[in-house]
Amino acid sequence: MNRKLNIFRTSIFGLMLLPGLTFGADVASSPWGSDDEIGRLNLITPESRRAALQNLNPAVTYDLSVEYFIGMPSWQAAGDPHFQIWMTHTPKGTKVDDPLSVGDRQNDRVSYSGSAFSMYAHTGTHIDALNHFGLNGKIWNHFSAAQYLGDRGWQKTGAENIPPIIARGVLLDVPAAKQVDELSPGYRITREDLEKTLVAQDTVIFPGDVVLIRTGRMRHYNDAQRFMENAPGLGMAAARFLAEDKQVLSLGADNLSFEAFPSEDANNYVPVHTYLLAQQGVTIMELVDLEQLARDRVYHFAFIGTPLKLRGADAAPLRPIAIPYADAE
Amino acid sequence: MNRKLNIFRTSIFGLMLLPGLTFGADVASSPWGSDDEIGRLNLITPESRRAALQNLNPAVTYDLSVEYFIGMPSWQAAGDPHFQIWMTHTPKGTKVDDPLSVGDRQNDRVSYSGSAFSMYAHTGTHIDALNHFGLNGKIWNHFSAAQYLGDRGWQKTGAENIPPIIARGVLLDVPAAKQVDELSPGYRITREDLEKTLVAQDTVIFPGDVVLIRTGRMRHYNDAQRFMENAPGLGMAAARFLAEDKQVLSLGADNLSFEAFPSEDANNYVPVHTYLLAQQGVTIMELVDLEQLARDRVYHFAFIGTPLKLRGADAAPLRPIAIPYADAE
Amino acid sequence: MNRKLNIFRTSIFGLMLLPGLTFGADVASSPWGSDDEIGRLNLITPESRRAALQNLNPAVTYDLSVEYFIGMPSWQAAGDPHFQIWMTHTPKGTKVDDPLSVGDRQNDRVSYSGSAFSMYAHTGTHIDALNHFGLNGKIWNHFSAAQYLGDRGWQKTGAENIPPIIARGVLLDVPAAKQVDELSPGYRITREDLEKTLVAQDTVIFPGDVVLIRTGRMRHYNDAQRFMENAPGLGMAAARFLAEDKQVLSLGADNLSFEAFPSEDANNYVPVHTYLLAQQGVTIMELVDLEQLARDRVYHFAFIGTPLKLRGADAAPLRPIAIPYADAE
Amino acid sequence: MNRKLNIFRTSIFGLMLLPGLTFGADVASSPWGSDDEIGRLNLITPESRRAALQNLNPAVTYDLSVEYFIGMPSWQAAGDPHFQIWMTHTPKGTKVDDPLSVGDRQNDRVSYSGSAFSMYAHTGTHIDALNHFGLNGKIWNHFSAAQYLGDRGWQKTGAENIPPIIARGVLLDVPAAKQVDELSPGYRITREDLEKTLVAQDTVIFPGDVVLIRTGRMRHYNDAQRFMENAPGLGMAAARFLAEDKQVLSLGADNLSFEAFPSEDANNYVPVHTYLLAQQGVTIMELVDLEQLARDRVYHFAFIGTPLKLRGADAAPLRPIAIPYADAE
Repeated sequence: MNRKLNIFRTSIFGLMLLPGLTFGADVASSPWGSDDEIGRLNLITPESRRAALQNLNPAVTYDLSVEYFIGMPSWQAAGDPHFQIWMTHTPKGTKVDDPLSVGDRQNDRVSYSGSAFSMYAHTGTHIDALNHFGLNGKIWNHFSAAQYLGDRGWQKTGAENIPPIIARGVLLDVPAAKQVDELSPGYRITREDLEKTLVAQDTVIFPGDVVLIRTGRMRHYNDAQRFMENAPGLGMAAARFLAEDKQVLSLGADNLSFEAFPSEDANNYVPVHTYLLAQQGVTIMELVDLEQLARDRVYHFAFIGTPLKLRGADAAPLRPIAIPYADAE
Repeated sequence: MNRKLNIFRTSIFGLMLLPGLTFGADVASSPWGSDDEIGRLNLITPESRRAALQNLNPAVTYDLSVEYFIGMPSWQAAGDPHFQIWMTHTPKGTKVDDPLSVGDRQNDRVSYSGSAFSMYAHTGTHIDALNHFGLNGKIWNHFSAAQYLGDRGWQKTGAENIPPIIARGVLLDVPAAKQVDELSPGYRITREDLEKTLVAQDTVIFPGDVVLIRTGRMRHYNDAQRFMENAPGLGMAAARFLAEDKQVLSLGADNLSFEAFPSEDANNYVPVHTYLLAQQGVTIMELVDLEQLARDRVYHFAFIGTPLKLRGADAAPLRPIAIPYADAE
Repeated sequence: MNRKLNIFRTSIFGLMLLPGLTFGADVASSPWGSDDEIGRLNLITPESRRAALQNLNPAVTYDLSVEYFIGMPSWQAAGDPHFQIWMTHTPKGTKVDDPLSVGDRQNDRVSYSGSAFSMYAHTGTHIDALNHFGLNGKIWNHFSAAQYLGDRGWQKTGAENIPPIIARGVLLDVPAAKQVDELSPGYRITREDLEKTLVAQDTVIFPGDVVLIRTGRMRHYNDAQRFMENAPGLGMAAARFLAEDKQVLSLGADNLSFEAFPSEDANNYVPVHTYLLAQQGVTIMELVDLEQLARDRVYHFAFIGTPLKLRGADAAPLRPIAIPYADAE
Repeated sequence: MNRKLNIFRTSIFGLMLLPGLTFGADVASSPWGSDDEIGRLNLITPESRRAALQNLNPAVTYDLSVEYFIGMPSWQAAGDPHFQIWMTHTPKGTKVDDPLSVGDRQNDRVSYSGSAFSMYAHTGTHIDALNHFGLNGKIWNHFSAAQYLGDRGWQKTGAENIPPIIARGVLLDVPAAKQVDELSPGYRITREDLEKTLVAQDTVIFPGDVVLIRTGRMRHYNDAQRFMENAPGLGMAAARFLAEDKQVLSLGADNLSFEAFPSEDANNYVPVHTYLLAQQGVTIMELVDLEQLARDRVYHFAFIGTPLKLRGADAAPLRPIAIPYADAE
């Protein structure tokens, strides 16, 4: 582990003196300037990328994305669209419709399949952009809905601004540290849980790391109802520990809504989201599949995640991968 | 260049003896067995990944994806859905609707934005899965629509099967080799064009490379009508050269439909697609943004592309990146 | 009642000698010829319309349609899309986006609202076209899916062929006749139930009538889960009684799926649908709101229903109305 | 014609003393009270319905709706979704997918077809609700977007409030009066055009009538591009004549956007819409097919139109019908 420590200390140290953010009742101003739209993702630099991609051992790579299919778990409490996919062209249908006016001979020979899909942007493995939750009508860096929210999304901090996320990644397997298969329904992860997990795993979080938190809920992904109901998730103290003490680049978890419900704040039904997104500039990944990493006890890795550039969107699907380091054993 | 040559020769040589494929009038059987669903992507191995990710210089990384927005260019000739994005939650609307029944105080405080989107799967930067085009009712490896095509997509070779594509990538900047800004409308790229480009660039294609062909059409991405009309694209001889002589892993281009129209085959309106997908097992990427790579003359790079795992789909969007090699200068 | 009897006997008698249909294991040939696409709706004639629209008393008219809204009950068992509606233009968003390039002054002055919606065609008050269910690959009148089903719907018997349905309508308030508020969950309506209801109501069904069957399930429309679960519905004997003995024009009910489940036929999960649509040429309306008619004991009325002309569709929403007759008291 | 005159004078006279509306720079207060959501549609009463439905001759009825299909003309200038329809269940696909888990035997026997569709609410024959256009952030009767516009539509004046429209209808065949087949592209209909048409047709408009204006543009419905481009439409003076002098119930036309463009008002890109909807409480129907009525010279008729009850929507599709009067000859 020593060598990795050095790599990151050397290359990122100095960049990580994140200026103190003012937070509390309102959204924060970005330390990266009044036009900043990506918050902590500014920590990605040539040096941080170089450090993150050193000493890779890609013999095994980890696919951290779930599949998209009709009936998959998704955020449904507020009436959002379920994932749908449908065929717009099939070999037989193309012959009947002949949409390209090429006639039977070609339609018999060329077997054309085409499909379309629709989804809430927060479906499947995805990242929340900084505009997903704000406070009092404003989002991260004081951009206001009144000025920047159109009918096609936000003109500020939309998913198209998120750069390819190339960084060192850390898995925190909380249930493993607690010696259970998965956290119990509704369990709220504490700061102490995270500290204990770091010790149990002999893991260090460096400033600028992507930190992925396993709750174990992904074990039930194929049972949508069970997956969605009353998931364990992060609490506020744990979020502060990661965002402030550990200066993470971005956070992720394997559940549907990252934080635990009901909220710890009577005036705010999603305090962890508003804290991370609007006050700390920390993007959040949800439905990240961490089961294989956990099984193989891969706690440090290069994380590569490239969200779809949906202009103006408050989230975008991505299929991140984890590549272990050569010195991980 | 010598060192790179050696790296790849050493690490990939031996894997690349692709068994001869039978093709012609019908789809091909996979050399990887009767249950193969990914064709050439089988060439991705621990060794090929290791080779592809050696000696990276990620000081600059290249984002090869276009943005998704209302009005973007898309395949529309056959009536497919245009890209749409819409808000399902806004700070003001949430207060009016109160979909989560949290009341005015919380809705005033928490500013919730949510969006949804829909698209034809072949919209924006995407990869065609092997089931996109077949011949005579069958796709790659003889899977038949009658047996495997449901109303939610194909049960064989769907996009969810595509592994993370980690490979050496090669840019072929055909217009640069021809000393033009972009190929003329409808221009059909020949085998000779590709050979000349390889020489002009001093580039070698190794078996298992992802080869990305620049036509220059991406210069007009913001003028959807101009982008879509009569694009230059690949011809059959060029496709054969890449698939058979060069044993590529996957192919891509910066235009809408990869191949040039009208077709060279009177019985087949998309012969390059059916040849690559159904007879060679070669997936095809379209709308890959190659402008910056071309500007910087980066002709070799690590290619990392992770298509969304849309179960059963004949295509999936992806946001690929290119990472230059340290020895590229 | 006598006068009504005479009106209809005089005007429709003669038209109603519906030729015997061959049914059983297969779909039926239409008695209206090999190109018929509307089945029993052929019974609508100038004379039948005239009879249906005589002696109207439109002091009160009845709106038989439910509302469409996010979260409404809908057919979901097979993964079909839930009803969605969303704003594509709002006064504030239009100012931010300026999609028509008219500038702030006009966008401030003109407050533009636009919305879009999507739904499974069988959502809300709707009519099943004859192509909704067939037998052994064919629908009513032997049109085969192989020949006529494209990717955009059926080229035969699609909803666009359904004429405006103007006919005498009859309400059968089965729970009222059984002196209950609503039929119990899963209750299967028998022929005897219908006969008893006719007597209880002092109602006569004439050939060519639209017959609407109340189960009482509509009382729970605002509780989607309760509305959808295990509804009471028609049984086969009752369907035969209406289709053959009574020679109805079209049928409707207030529940989600018209017939009761589980099916009475081990080889057919929707025997009432296939019987009515494919063997009798009888279209089926579902989610028809009959509560007010029942409350006012209006058992005979002019029925006017005009389904949206969705080309190729197997169903279409409609908002039917009932207009009482002057001699109904 | 005399008898009809009497019918309407007798039955509607007295109801029609529409209180003076204040209009000009702002939206109007409704004369029907501060909670009114339907404007002029309040003129529909038991008496007006009775008058409208007297002396019908339904030997021929007129279907005033266009068909919905992929590629149909639609409002596209501001990026709104084109009409889409797709299959969610097909006989073959159901066998492959088995979404209801009934097995091959039943899936072979029962041939299931299901489809879904999506559209901008202003697609095909439709009615604009009063919330479609307002002034300065408010709509008809001073309902403000700030208070009543949620993410699922308006809580005031949504399409679900529109009653079944049963009224006397009048066709104004303007091109016929001008002895042309259709009005020229971009032609703006004047008050004089309407007055001349009334004389040419020997037609009287009574207060509370639905008035449908033919431009002839519907002749090109099957050529979407031609249909959409630069249609003839109503001018402001003509709109005032109908709304104020003639006290119409609702208006309609056969073109895409009712009014002619470019606007007559430099500060308002849709002055006829804002005037009718927000200042006069007059709903507007578009894409009404008037060709057959015109061919048969049926200028007076019972109009029956029942828009889908889309909760909160600013428009709804409807399939209106016209039933001639017995004394029309």
